Amino acid sequence: MEPVAVVILLALVEYAAFGGLVGWARGKYGVNAPAVSGHPVFERYFRVHQNTLEQLVMFVPAIWLFGTYVNATWAALIGLAFVVARVVYLIGYVKDPAKREIGFALSSLSVVVLLLGALWGVGRQVF
Amino acid sequence: MEPVAVVILLALVEYAAFGGLVGWARGKYGVNAPAVSGHPVFERYFRVHQNTLEQLVMFVPAIWLFGTYVNATWAALIGLAFVVARVVYLIGYVKDPAKREIGFALSSLSVVVLLLGALWGVGRQVF
Amino acid sequence: MEPVAVVILLALVEYAAFGGLVGWARGKYGVNAPAVSGHPVFERYFRVHQNTLEQLVMFVPAIWLFGTYVNATWAALIGLAFVVARVVYLIGYVKDPAKREIGFALSSLSVVVLLLGALWGVGRQVF
Repeated sequence: MEPVAVVILLALVEYAAFGGLVGWARGKYGVNAPAVSGHPVFERYFRVHQNTLEQLVMFVPAIWLFGTYVNATWAALIGLAFVVARVVYLIGYVKDPAKREIGFALSSLSVVVLLLGALWGVGRQVF
Repeated sequence: MEPVAVVILLALVEYAAFGGLVGWARGKYGVNAPAVSGHPVFERYFRVHQNTLEQLVMFVPAIWLFGTYVNATWAALIGLAFVVARVVYLIGYVKDPAKREIGFALSSLSVVVLLLGALWGVGRQVF
Repeated sequence: MEPVAVVILLALVEYAAFGGLVGWARGKYGVNAPAVSGHPVFERYFRVHQNTLEQLVMFVPAIWLFGTYVNATWAALIGLAFVVARVVYLIGYVKDPAKREIGFALSSLSVVVLLLGALWGVGRQVF
C-alpha cells in the first residue's frame, strides 16, 4: 500500500497549499477573517479550497479501499490523476468560474472510479 | 471488515449524490458559482451537503475504529442507521429547515455511539 | 497503533464539541439555519468549527500514516499537541479574530510535521 500512501499524502500536501493560497488571497484582496466573501477573486480561491475538501473526504477512504480490495498500483495511478486534475481545476476557476468545469469533471471522475471500483472489489469478497 | 467497508462506501456515494443535488439546485434556483447563497431553497441543499461533510469527517474514522476494536457487524449496522438518517435529514431540511432536527439527531446519535464505543474499545486494549 | 487511535478519537470528540458550540451560538446570537452569518461572534464559532474540519481532513490520514511508517508514540504525542492547539485556537478566535494566529500556527505545524514525516517514512520504504 506504499504507493497509495504516497498519493494520499501528495493530495493532502496539495490541499494544504490551496489553504495557503486562501490565506494569501485574504491579504491581497483585503478580506479579513471571519469573512469568507467580499472580493470575487478571493471567493474563487476559497471555493477551490472548500471544493477540494469536499472531494478529499471521499477520495481518501475510496483510494484506500480500492487499493486494499482491487489493486494498489491502479489506485495510485487514478489517485495521481486526481491530484493533477485539482491543479487544472484551480487554474481554471481562478481565471474564470465557468472554466472550472474540466478540472472538476476530471477529479470527480477519479473519485467515482475509486468509489465504484472499491464497492465492486469489496462486494466480490462478500458475495 | 468488509461490511464496514461497504457501509463507508455507501455513505460516500450518498454524499456524492447530495453534492450532485447542490449542482442541480444551482441551475434550478439560478445561483452561479462561486456564490453559495441567494435563494433559500438552494441554501438548504448546500447546507445538507456541508453538514453531511461535517459528520462524515467523524463517521469514517469512528466506524473504522469501532469495527476494529469493538465489533465489525455492529459497526456496519450503526453505520447503516447513519446512512438512512441522512436521507431523513435531507428530506426534512428541504421541506422546512425546522424539520431537519429528527434526521440530524439520529445521524448525530450514530456518530456519537461509534465515537464513544470506539474510544471504549481502544481504551480496553490499552489499560 | 492504539495510542494513535485514541488521539484520533479525542480530536474527533473535540471537533464534535466545537460543532455543539456552533449550535449553541445559533441560539444565543439568533442566527437561524440555513444562515451561517448575521452576527460576528456566531461567525467566529462557525469558522472555528469549519477550520477544524479543514485541518482534520489532513490530520487523520497523516497521523495514521506517520504512526504506521515512522513511529506510533511520536505520532500520538504530535497529535496531542494538535488537540491542545485547537483549544488555544478556539479561545483566541472567539476573543478576537486577530488572536487566532497562535493556535492556528501550532495546530498547522503539527499537521505539517505529521504530513512531511509520513511522506519521509513512506518514501524510505519505497526507495
